[in-house]
Order: sequence, then C-alpha cells, then structure tokens
Amino acid sequence: MEFSLGQILKIVDGTLEGDEAYIITDLAEIQHAKKGQLTFLGNPKYNKYLSTTEATAVLVPKDFKGSYENLIRVENPNLAFSLMIPRFRPELPLPNPEIHKTACIANSAQLGENIYIGPNVTIEDKAVIENNVFIFANSYIGTETRIGSETIIRPNVTIYHNCQIGSKVLIHSGVVVGSDGFGFVRTEKSIKKIPQAGRVVIGDDVEIGANCSIDRGTLGDTVISKGTKLDNLIQIAHNVKIGVYCFIAAQSGIAGSSTIEDRVTIAGQVGVAGHLKIGEGAIVAAQSGVSKDVPPGTIVFGYPAQEQKKARREIVNIRSIPDIKAKLKEIEKIIEESK
Amino acid sequence: MEFSLGQILKIVDGTLEGDEAYIITDLAEIQHAKKGQLTFLGNPKYNKYLSTTEATAVLVPKDFKGSYENLIRVENPNLAFSLMIPRFRPELPLPNPEIHKTACIANSAQLGENIYIGPNVTIEDKAVIENNVFIFANSYIGTETRIGSETIIRPNVTIYHNCQIGSKVLIHSGVVVGSDGFGFVRTEKSIKKIPQAGRVVIGDDVEIGANCSIDRGTLGDTVISKGTKLDNLIQIAHNVKIGVYCFIAAQSGIAGSSTIEDRVTIAGQVGVAGHLKIGEGAIVAAQSGVSKDVPPGTIVFGYPAQEQKKARREIVNIRSIPDIKAKLKEIEKIIEESK
Amino acid sequence: MEFSLGQILKIVDGTLEGDEAYIITDLAEIQHAKKGQLTFLGNPKYNKYLSTTEATAVLVPKDFKGSYENLIRVENPNLAFSLMIPRFRPELPLPNPEIHKTACIANSAQLGENIYIGPNVTIEDKAVIENNVFIFANSYIGTETRIGSETIIRPNVTIYHNCQIGSKVLIHSGVVVGSDGFGFVRTEKSIKKIPQAGRVVIGDDVEIGANCSIDRGTLGDTVISKGTKLDNLIQIAHNVKIGVYCFIAAQSGIAGSSTIEDRVTIAGQVGVAGHLKIGEGAIVAAQSGVSKDVPPGTIVFGYPAQEQKKARREIVNIRSIPDIKAKLKEIEKIIEESK
Repeated sequence: MEFSLGQILKIVDGTLEGDEAYIITDLAEIQHAKKGQLTFLGNPKYNKYLSTTEATAVLVPKDFKGSYENLIRVENPNLAFSLMIPRFRPELPLPNPEIHKTACIANSAQLGENIYIGPNVTIEDKAVIENNVFIFANSYIGTETRIGSETIIRPNVTIYHNCQIGSKVLIHSGVVVGSDGFGFVRTEKSIKKIPQAGRVVIGDDVEIGANCSIDRGTLGDTVISKGTKLDNLIQIAHNVKIGVYCFIAAQSGIAGSSTIEDRVTIAGQVGVAGHLKIGEGAIVAAQSGVSKDVPPGTIVFGYPAQEQKKARREIVNIRSIPDIKAKLKEIEKIIEESK
Repeated sequence: MEFSLGQILKIVDGTLEGDEAYIITDLAEIQHAKKGQLTFLGNPKYNKYLSTTEATAVLVPKDFKGSYENLIRVENPNLAFSLMIPRFRPELPLPNPEIHKTACIANSAQLGENIYIGPNVTIEDKAVIENNVFIFANSYIGTETRIGSETIIRPNVTIYHNCQIGSKVLIHSGVVVGSDGFGFVRTEKSIKKIPQAGRVVIGDDVEIGANCSIDRGTLGDTVISKGTKLDNLIQIAHNVKIGVYCFIAAQSGIAGSSTIEDRVTIAGQVGVAGHLKIGEGAIVAAQSGVSKDVPPGTIVFGYPAQEQKKARREIVNIRSIPDIKAKLKEIEKIIEESK
Repeated sequence: MEFSLGQILKIVDGTLEGDEAYIITDLAEIQHAKKGQLTFLGNPKYNKYLSTTEATAVLVPKDFKGSYENLIRVENPNLAFSLMIPRFRPELPLPNPEIHKTACIANSAQLGENIYIGPNVTIEDKAVIENNVFIFANSYIGTETRIGSETIIRPNVTIYHNCQIGSKVLIHSGVVVGSDGFGFVRTEKSIKKIPQAGRVVIGDDVEIGANCSIDRGTLGDTVISKGTKLDNLIQIAHNVKIGVYCFIAAQSGIAGSSTIEDRVTIAGQVGVAGHLKIGEGAIVAAQSGVSKDVPPGTIVFGYPAQEQKKARREIVNIRSIPDIKAKLKEIEKIIEESK
C-alpha cells in the first residue's frame, strides 16, 4: 500500500509544510518511525522525538510550534492518524454469514438475516438475533435476550436472559452481562438473597472491554446508554444508569444504583460508591474513591475524592509539614531564649 | 398478578397504617413508583421521595417517622420487599433435567439424579456431580472435582481439578475456581514456579459473582465457608481462609494465606495483604488497603487502613493544615513586632 | 510416599542438625504440621510456630537462629520446600495427545505433533499450533495466531487473531489476549474508535493468571517478555512493553504505552498511568498509583506513588499533626500570657 502526501492530505483534511510528492509506505509511532513512514504527535510528551525520528512526514496539531521536513497540520492528529490505520493495516475481515453446525440454537429463537453464529454458541429460548449480527465461538445468549443489528460479540461472552443489547455494539471476550446484582439482607443468623428480577439494557454503539461484569437490575434496569465505551475488567453493579458517550477506563467499578450522566470520563481503577450521581461532563481522575455526588463539569481526584484543585492543594499542604515543624522549632527557640 | 394490602401484610409480617383493601399490581423503586405499585424505603437517602412518589403503599421500618396514604411497617423493608419480588416478577424457571447431547462427559465421572448439563459442558475424569445440580453451557468441571447437590453453575465457568463445591452454591459466569496460586521463588537469573498442589473448598450456600478468580492452595486448601457471598471480579489468592456469612464486594482482593473470620464485611476495591487476619464481624470500608491484622468487630478505613475514627480524624487533621499555617504566620508576625 | 531426612538433604542441598534416619511421609504448613511431616520457615512471621509445631523436620534459612529436633538449613526454604511438593503430591498428569472430535479446527491451521486439543476448542484460519501444546476445553485461538511449543492453555481462554505466544507459556482460564486497546477520540458530538491493528507478543516461560486482559497494540505490539509472571485479574493496555522476569500481582493495571523494564516487581492493585517507564528492578508497593516515571532499583509507594522513604515519612508527618496543634496552642498561650 502506498499513498503520496498529497493523497494523505485529502484523507486527513490537513495542510502540508513540505512536498506533496513524497510517498508513504507505512505507519509507525514516532520513536520507531523510519524513512517512508508517516507518524503523528498526539501527546506533547513525545515532541522530543521530532529531533530523532526518521519519519518522512509527521501529523501535528494546527498550532504546533516546530518544523520538520514534511509537517501535516490537522485539527486532531490522533484522529487523523487513526483514519490512516485501516489504509495501511486492513482489519481482519469479519466472517461470512454462517450458522455453524455445532451451535445450539433453541427452536423458539428468532434469527435475522446475514448473521454469523460461530462454533459452540448457545442461543436459548425466544432470544432474538437481529440482522447482520456476529456471535463468535463459545458465547452464550440467554432466554428472551435481544441482540441488535450489526452487533459483534467476541468469543466466550455470556449474556444472561432477558437483556437488551443495542445495534452496532461491540462486546469483547470474557464479558458477563446480566449476572445477579449483589443484593442480600443480613439477618441475625444468615444472609438472605434479594431476587434480581430486572434487566440490563445496552444502547447503540456501546463498546464493552474484555472481562467486564455488568449486573442486571433488582427490579428496574441497569442501563448503559448510546456511544459509551468501557475498557476492560470494569464492574457495573445493579441499577446503575450510565448516560451517553461516557468513557470508563479499566478496572473501575460503579456501585449499585449510582447514576453517571452524559459525557462523563472516569479514569482507571476508580471506585464510585452506591446511590451517587456523577454530573454531566465530570472527570474522575485515576484511582479516585468517589463517596459523594460530583457536580457537572467538575474534575475530582483522591481518596476520598474531592475537587481536583483542593486535592492537589492538600498534597502540597501535606508536603509542607516538615516546613511547619521547622518553623515551630524556630519559634520555640525564640521563646525559650526570650525567657 | 394482584395482591391486596391485606394479603401483602401476611407475606411480609407487617402492620398497616391505611386500608387493607387496596390492590397492588406491581413493584417499583420509590422514585419511579406509580399508582397501584408497592415500594419501600430501605435507605434514608430516599426518604425525600416519599413526598413525590405516586406509589399506593410503602414498606418502611417499624420506627419510621412520617406518614403516607398506606404505610406498611416491617422489621426490615429491604427483606420485606424482596419477599414480594418473586410474587410479581417470577424468576426464569431453571431448565428441566437433561444431559445435552453435545456435553463431553468422561466415563469415569459420577452423575447424580435430576441434573441439567447444558450444551458443550466438559466434565473430566472421576468428577462427581451430585443430585439436582445445574451446569450451564460451556462450563468446565475438572478431574475429581465434586459439585454438591442443588448447586447452580452458570455458563462459561471453569472449575479446575480436585476442587470441592458445596450444596446450593451459585457460581456466576466467567468465574475461575482452582487456578494456580501465584507462588514463585525469584532466583538469581530467573523465576521458579512453586507447584500448587492444594485444593479449593467452597461451603454450602456460597454465591460467587461474575469473573471472580479463586486460586487453589499450595499445599492445604483455599477455603470459602458456608453462606459467604462474593460480588464480581474478586481475587482470592492461595491458602486464603474465609469464614461463614461474610460479604465481599466487587473488585476486592485477598492476598495469600490471609484469614477472614466469620461475618466480616469487606466493601468494594479493598486490598488485604498476605498472611493477615481480619477478625470476626470486622468491617473494611471501600478501597482500603489493609496491611496489618484487624481486631474483631472493628471498622477500618484508609490506605494504609486504620481504625475508622482515627482515619477520619486524620482527614480532618490534613484539612486543618491551612489553619495551622495561618496561625504560624500570625505568631511569626507577633514575634517580629515584639523584637 | 516416604523419604528419609538423608534422602531429602540430597534433594534440597541442605545441612541437617538432627538424625538422617527419620522418615517423612508428608508435607504441611508449620501451624498444621504433625509427626512424620516436613515443614518450612519461609517468612519470619511464622517463626513463632516453631515452639508449637509437631513437625518431624523443618527447613530453615542457613543463618536461622533457633533450634529444633531436626533442622535442615538451606539457601532458600521456600525453594527447597517447593522441590519436595511434587515428590509427595504428584501433579495431575497432563492429558495424552488427542484432538477431540468436537474441536473445530480450520483446514488452513497448522498443527504440530503430540498436541492435545480439548473438547469444543475453536482454532481459526492459518493459526499455528507448535509441538507438544495443550489447549483445554472451550478455548479459542484466532486467525493467524501462533502458539509456541509446550505451551499450556487452560479451559475458556480467548486469544484473538494475529497474536504470538511463546514456548512453555502457561495461560490460565478466563484470560483474554488480543482484545482491542481502549483507543478512541472524543469529537464534538460523539466518540470515534481508533482501529487497533497491532498484536500481542508473549515471550517464553510467561505465566498469565486467571481472568487477565491483555489488549493488542494500536499499531505496534503489546509485549510481555520471557519469564514474566502475571497473577489474576490484571489489565495490560495497548502498546505496553513488559521486560523479562517481572512479577505483577493480582488486580494491577498498566495503562497504555507504558514500559515496565526487566525484573520489576509490582504488588497487588497497583495502577500505572500511561506513557510511563518503570525502571529495571524497581518495586511498586501494593495499591500504589504511579503517575510519573520510576527510576531503576527504587521502591515506590502511595497515591500518588513516591519513593518509599518519602511516602513513609509523609505518613509519620500526617500523624504528627495533633502534636503540631498542641505545640501551637502552647505557644499561643505563652504569647497571650506575655502580653
């Protein structure tokens, strides 16, 4: 595969400082890029590599200060670079429509057109698989669960009964959707289970990373809305409601009945306690422990989490304790001497 | 399905302030409840909704201060409400006894009566499946492992060889029981594996949430005792001993050889270091990092975890540093002036 | 199985204070050991049990101060004891070579000699399975993925397309290798996925614990090098590079593009942010949140993580705030009185 810089400019909608005739034959990260390769600067941390890279051309932000043999200025270098990836590295094509002979599909299940059902997939009673769905090997679709059109379910996924999965959803391997919420009542002598009779409802264009667990609601639904993206190993407890276009990074957990409003970003290993609300557009920094509501648009951090500025000032304050002690000693000395 | 409040009173063992003749046709959470529905107040945080809910009746604690059209006072509203859930929302029935034709069962395995073995289940040599067990699709039962009567194993569960699972246990999808403990010795040039030759022993009435990992013992057993409940994505390392009727919330991890005594509650994302003891009835707050023994009955919190009161006072102390600095400045000023 | 202490001395390369004629019939942990059993002292925390154990002999470090009926001094008691485990507790033998009739293997896949492919395994197009490999039930090997010789893949493992797994690798159940990295660009109205076109490359002698997730690179590779050991439920994000002979304990997560150099030890529930470098031989204590590079050979701890001595001093400083306040009060009193 080969593209001239002139052709690339059109694909990424950029402006060139250099020569349109140069030919690009591959992509690479800036620290590894060689002659003939296109690279990008998406994180200022990597700007230092501009002086050592052998790349033929570099995608940079429009306001980038710096020069290079061939500099392509674009709105968003990450996005521009990502547009080039499938040109040079075509994705593994999805399999042709097929219902593998080893799949176990209940007679009462409804199957759409042009679907792929891989080896050893189990589809239970009255499940509905819409058109153009791909369900890979060893996955399980429970009774009365619906899988929306064009959704892709990777191998070894488990979706319990009576769940609703939207269209164009991507569910990675090891994910469990619809397991029982952690609902119990401790009595004097033992522990009684609260039946978990709700559902999981997942909107269109959602992506769920490997080995996530999403529990069904107790009575109502656990909801993940349109366009939200979950990284790996995330816990979503019963009755949680997540809005549209949120990001949740790996190993975070949202406890029962909490609400994450639209366009929230939650970094890795965050814990959100139960019955809370994280307001629209809020950002929760990595490893934070959120124990109270977060207002819309705020950035929080820490354990327990608080507004980021406060949390940072707190760290500065802690690190000033030796100074405080030194001053105290000085003062005590002065007082001692003045006696 | 319909119940009069009079009928409901008998089921939940409550006293009514209202009219027994009202008919309830469904259940709902208090913020969503409509006419004809029964709801409950199990968490004071939701009391505010009593003024806006349209519910026909509300289950409340015996000593609840407040009034409503139909108020049902009970010992434990969560428990009472949970008794009503199966009346209005019957659970998906378990499948009829069957050994699916695609299951791969070793000749030397022993199968009890009235069991369900789903599609593509593998049962290895000399495994024992007691009566009335349900093993769903794609699960794996290793050599010489025993599954106690009435236990339910959801799809895509893996139980390694030589493990003991009690009766009436519920294991959710993605769980791995009996994988090797993380036992290695670092030598000068490489890392040597310590054979993991013990077992996992799980007591009766245990529930294990989706995608948990429970490692086998090195020599002795990893033990989870009767009635203990594990949420999702929990790590139980080799040789851990967990007592009866404990709660462990999602994404917590217990490192090797630690002992969790009876009736302990561990909140989410907690880490317990190795070779420790958490005493009977102790409570560990969310995201705590436990690095030393916890005495029975105490509540601990923080990183590193300490007795809750101390941990809270510490937070208050940290937040008083600006005051300390202000006072220091004042004193310095006074001293300066007095010179 | 029986061994005299004389025979054991030769196996563990130790020196005996006691009588070579004693017969050992089993192994046990020191707190449970009975007559006829061999035990060990690998952690000083357990030294107290030396006065109560009924063990016939105890493996101890060469410089151990203390005496016992039969004391075997060795370089490393953990290692010595681990050499004895397979003598008394033979491991479950691996299955004989077989390709199970229910396995679904693409015609274009290449299969080596003496391999075991269990029930319901799926092997996709052009995958390569080298000699003496074991792939247990319900596992999935994607298109063009290569599994090196003598590697063992436990049940219910998923390895996506185009990944490279070395020789003598052990992958536990529930592991997902090669899922998409969490790469997205947030645009004004929605979120765009960055294609994840790289691979996962795993070196020889690596062990990966249950339910880990290892994402493929965006363009280049996610790499785990020779001899590194991962515990359970670990997240390895796209483009992470891990050196040789590292330990990573359970539930830790390494964010995108970070580099873990050789022989690093990462304890449990640690988070490492993206684009960082953890230097050779560094140690990261449990639950730390690493937000900047860690120099080689250093020990870090805390949230945010810092050099261990600093982190500890900080805790001491925080705990001294009440003293600071008391002194301040005293000084204020003196000043008040001197007015």
